[in-house]
Amino acid sequence: MPLIRSVFQDELDRVSQTLFDLSVMVSDSMARATKSVMTKDLKLAEEVITSDEKIDTVQHDLDARIIDIIARQQPVASDLRALVTALRMSADLERMGDLAHHVAKLVRLRHPESAVPAELLALVEAIGETAEKIATKTGVVISTRDVALAVQVEKDDDEMDNLHRKLISTLVEPSWPHGVETAIDLTLLGRYYERYADHAVSVARRVIFLVTGKFA
Amino acid sequence: MPLIRSVFQDELDRVSQTLFDLSVMVSDSMARATKSVMTKDLKLAEEVITSDEKIDTVQHDLDARIIDIIARQQPVASDLRALVTALRMSADLERMGDLAHHVAKLVRLRHPESAVPAELLALVEAIGETAEKIATKTGVVISTRDVALAVQVEKDDDEMDNLHRKLISTLVEPSWPHGVETAIDLTLLGRYYERYADHAVSVARRVIFLVTGKFA
Repeated sequence: MPLIRSVFQDELDRVSQTLFDLSVMVSDSMARATKSVMTKDLKLAEEVITSDEKIDTVQHDLDARIIDIIARQQPVASDLRALVTALRMSADLERMGDLAHHVAKLVRLRHPESAVPAELLALVEAIGETAEKIATKTGVVISTRDVALAVQVEKDDDEMDNLHRKLISTLVEPSWPHGVETAIDLTLLGRYYERYADHAVSVARRVIFLVTGKFA
Repeated sequence: MPLIRSVFQDELDRVSQTLFDLSVMVSDSMARATKSVMTKDLKLAEEVITSDEKIDTVQHDLDARIIDIIARQQPVASDLRALVTALRMSADLERMGDLAHHVAKLVRLRHPESAVPAELLALVEAIGETAEKIATKTGVVISTRDVALAVQVEKDDDEMDNLHRKLISTLVEPSWPHGVETAIDLTLLGRYYERYADHAVSVARRVIFLVTGKFA
């Protein structure tokens, strides 16, 4: 292993580190948003809403840093590709933060009522846990560039799709007792989690592309 | 006016031209998707679904071209900023194509039934027309870098938000006669149009940023 590393390589590593940090932030944000759904905790929901600004700032600073690296180092080929891919990952991660923020806003909108009827809390919790699992694995994929784990993220997304279908099929049962407004809330809630997972899959796929040169 | 233009400037102009072409494609795609909602035209919906691949290919080729320009020309400062911004605009436009595709898929799913009850067709048509107006203006903003017009796009988006709120408020009326499944369809449909307009606003804002150096 070479003991001398280039400044440029250090800069790339710091970019990866910040992408990982962002993944932790958006994973934590969605975990807390889900918890606020479960507990109708307005304070927690407000915290998630506020912390989205912090995520946006980190993402904005990261993008500025990436563009500065491109301007100064004038990378070509795989290094340039890695930096452009990092810009796209940061956009995906920022959007994941937005979607956690949307979940928390729904909790705030319905407070002190619950956004989710009691008998659906377990299903929404399972959806939330799957989202968190996917985001956490995506963070590890960013750190380790582990292609096998990136493929697992896609499998986990199939699980998310199944849970999402289960949610929608519950809403359209003739016996659905909670009315249209709650069905709309749950449709949007389901969509936020589904899109959150889609963006995590997108990040994992970009890592696969960086490592293998091919899209999965 | 200088008669001799640099190869680089020509390349930037061609990037702008392709972004404009993409805006025309996604505007046309959403216009046809909306028409397929109005007419329950399965063939038209299928065409929109198929044409999304073409949009993805154009976007993919554009991104490869932008990265190639960065690698060869090694631009700094405002030129690099313009190219990175072009990458982000192309991602927004590609997503707008996806959302038109989602609208068309809902038409296909419900065929030969209508995805939208007769008394809501006029409202959905107004939403579709607003989306198309926003996308068309965004195309002109890309071509002309007209900041005043970019600001208008944001105003048009307020109109979209109003129409969207009107749609949701119709669904939650106690007298809503069409059941939960149709309400879910319309919630998602409304969300697709709303997000489509959001991405157009994002493109317009990026043009403002390029011209003024500030976000609107």
